[in-house]
Amino acid sequence: MKAEIIAVGTELLMGQIVNTNAQYISRGLADIGVGVYYQTVVGDNVDRIKETLAVAKSRADLIICTGGLGPTQDDLTKDVLAEVLGRKLVIHQPSYDYMENLFRTRGITMVESNIRQAYMLEGTDPLPNDTGLAVGNAVTQDGTHYILLPGPPKEMKPMFDTYVISWLTDRMGSVQPLFSTMMKFAGIGESFLEHALIDLIQAQTDPTIAPYAKEGEVALRLTTRAASKEQATEKLWPLEREIRTRLGDHVYASEDITLELEVLRLLTAANKTLSVAESCTGGQLSDLLTAVPGGSHSFAGGVICYTNRVKNKVLGVPMEQLEGPDAPGAVSEETARLLAENVRKLADADYALSLTGVAGPAESEGKPVGLVYVGIAERDAETEVVTLNLSGNRETIKLRASKTALYHLWKKIKI
Amino acid sequence: MKAEIIAVGTELLMGQIVNTNAQYISRGLADIGVGVYYQTVVGDNVDRIKETLAVAKSRADLIICTGGLGPTQDDLTKDVLAEVLGRKLVIHQPSYDYMENLFRTRGITMVESNIRQAYMLEGTDPLPNDTGLAVGNAVTQDGTHYILLPGPPKEMKPMFDTYVISWLTDRMGSVQPLFSTMMKFAGIGESFLEHALIDLIQAQTDPTIAPYAKEGEVALRLTTRAASKEQATEKLWPLEREIRTRLGDHVYASEDITLELEVLRLLTAANKTLSVAESCTGGQLSDLLTAVPGGSHSFAGGVICYTNRVKNKVLGVPMEQLEGPDAPGAVSEETARLLAENVRKLADADYALSLTGVAGPAESEGKPVGLVYVGIAERDAETEVVTLNLSGNRETIKLRASKTALYHLWKKIKI
Repeated sequence: MKAEIIAVGTELLMGQIVNTNAQYISRGLADIGVGVYYQTVVGDNVDRIKETLAVAKSRADLIICTGGLGPTQDDLTKDVLAEVLGRKLVIHQPSYDYMENLFRTRGITMVESNIRQAYMLEGTDPLPNDTGLAVGNAVTQDGTHYILLPGPPKEMKPMFDTYVISWLTDRMGSVQPLFSTMMKFAGIGESFLEHALIDLIQAQTDPTIAPYAKEGEVALRLTTRAASKEQATEKLWPLEREIRTRLGDHVYASEDITLELEVLRLLTAANKTLSVAESCTGGQLSDLLTAVPGGSHSFAGGVICYTNRVKNKVLGVPMEQLEGPDAPGAVSEETARLLAENVRKLADADYALSLTGVAGPAESEGKPVGLVYVGIAERDAETEVVTLNLSGNRETIKLRASKTALYHLWKKIKI
Repeated sequence: MKAEIIAVGTELLMGQIVNTNAQYISRGLADIGVGVYYQTVVGDNVDRIKETLAVAKSRADLIICTGGLGPTQDDLTKDVLAEVLGRKLVIHQPSYDYMENLFRTRGITMVESNIRQAYMLEGTDPLPNDTGLAVGNAVTQDGTHYILLPGPPKEMKPMFDTYVISWLTDRMGSVQPLFSTMMKFAGIGESFLEHALIDLIQAQTDPTIAPYAKEGEVALRLTTRAASKEQATEKLWPLEREIRTRLGDHVYASEDITLELEVLRLLTAANKTLSVAESCTGGQLSDLLTAVPGGSHSFAGGVICYTNRVKNKVLGVPMEQLEGPDAPGAVSEETARLLAENVRKLADADYALSLTGVAGPAESEGKPVGLVYVGIAERDAETEVVTLNLSGNRETIKLRASKTALYHLWKKIKI
């Protein structure tokens, strides 16, 4: 199957929003082995939508449109495709009934523009909208598959995952389903990962190895086709084992979860708590940890010791250690150690992480941008301090420092 | 001018990255009055790039390509356009010299693949790359303007802003240049803003009013064409004044800066400092404040008082206020007040903000998700407490609470 993704919406052409739908669908199609050859964006204009559909039909046999299914006069996609395919628009009764009930409950009068959202092309497959009102559509005509999806990502994504993937795999004939494993890594960068696995990556055929990198996180997806989950595991496991043999110290999960979630999970399972003292990261590590709902069971909070006064007054670092010609300074192993130990005691936590360093853009205390000390304190144990030399801009250094601190704690508490 | 933006890169079609370049360019073109009619993404494939260029030429007279200017064999855009336009590729000497010098300094041998980045189409306008190695190109042939830009946003954006905009406006003939003013708002949402200005928005012709909204921030850009800056000001000012009359309490800047930057600027100018006590926001407000380089002059740091123990032990909130059947609880006006007052004293700061509330997903202390108390303490002044009822998911509530707290401080310190 050759796919083209068409996003309909003048707001995209004005640059008011980014076409994240195209990425989401492209990745989802890649996962089931369908290649995307083009992505196109066109405005809310009948003639130009028609022309775009005609161009797409000439070079693809799967056309997925997003956007233009809503209630307003600018929402044209369904009408245009109906005209192009010579089909009538008919009411999709379950969507209509749902909407009518919803409006009645809320005491609002349903008008024709609302009802438009329940229309579908006659004789096609409706795609239910579990998070909104506009029904989607799927149809095959003259050898081309057409799929219409709503534009808002919160409606598009569930419809795509729940209904489109199975609709497509049903039509892909005897191809075996895809199975995949995600491996998440901490404490190494993308280039280190690629270097360590370059022979596997270059030799890959089945399973395939796809690296994913976001700032501060590195992941691999191993994918294969198989008749059953058991058969897939037989094919995936030797590769995962080989990667774990080489990089096991860095594999923190076999599913797509963040490092902070895994750390909080381990802490919760062990009934332990964590506190933090953040200087150069300025609250980012705490922000990551509190993004996880329920994290308060194991995250005790901490101190943003951004100034020497707070390091001294709240966390008990002596001023003579922080300031003066011969003092180690705020950015030092000694300070990182005391910050971690004292914030742990202050919050009565089992573990503490401290971060003190130079996030830039200018150096500080004569120390270079990217130098960060991470203290890792543990109840009834020796405090460790790790020295990092990070590269990147201020934002990147803050994030890498936060993630690397979590990595060192993870190494300590993993089973 | 009718524009089409073509992004070249298989990684986009695989869904590995999002096409943010298309948005950036679309918005930049909208600002100078050029309409984008299509955005297209095509892979690193000679035939398909050719076909895409041919389709674009049939429907646009400005074609902007991003990507495919790098050193690898997958970087094909320049070669394909040279072939399509029947032009030779020649060395752009300044780019070549710069690269040669860079490589010599680093002791690396420059190979043919590197040199490819200094190639340009013969007889065209080079677009210097101030943040990378691949030179861009601009050329008009047979009435169509072609512009080639590098794919990495950190190279593309400066090249577009610095060289492409002026190259285009030079070719837009007698059209007067565009002038615009950005107005940034705090403490109100997009729908409130639109409601307050609906008559102005609906009646707009010249100047135009374009709303921009990101999570936690709302902005308007007022734009007009004029012969001079003075003439533009004469046209823009009455509209800006009218908006300020209606919403002046919420306009924190006439340029595109964040609220946290404006707050830190005001504090620095007044030689004042700020500290924070964050419960429900968990460090996010501090993270925002420390994203601003040099913020340490006026940001004193604070406490992540995520647990009652830290609220009590570090910030002196009595346990009987926090816990017990008749206690106000952690999420209360009383606690917000004490947190703000005590963190201000602890950090010896002039101002303090405290945030305590329910970020969700579950309620807490029998209080609903979205209820947040913000304390605003000031040296030698009464402490204020503001009650917020925010909507959204956990992430949204954290961000809205952080931004709203900053808004209330801004109201207090603005001149």
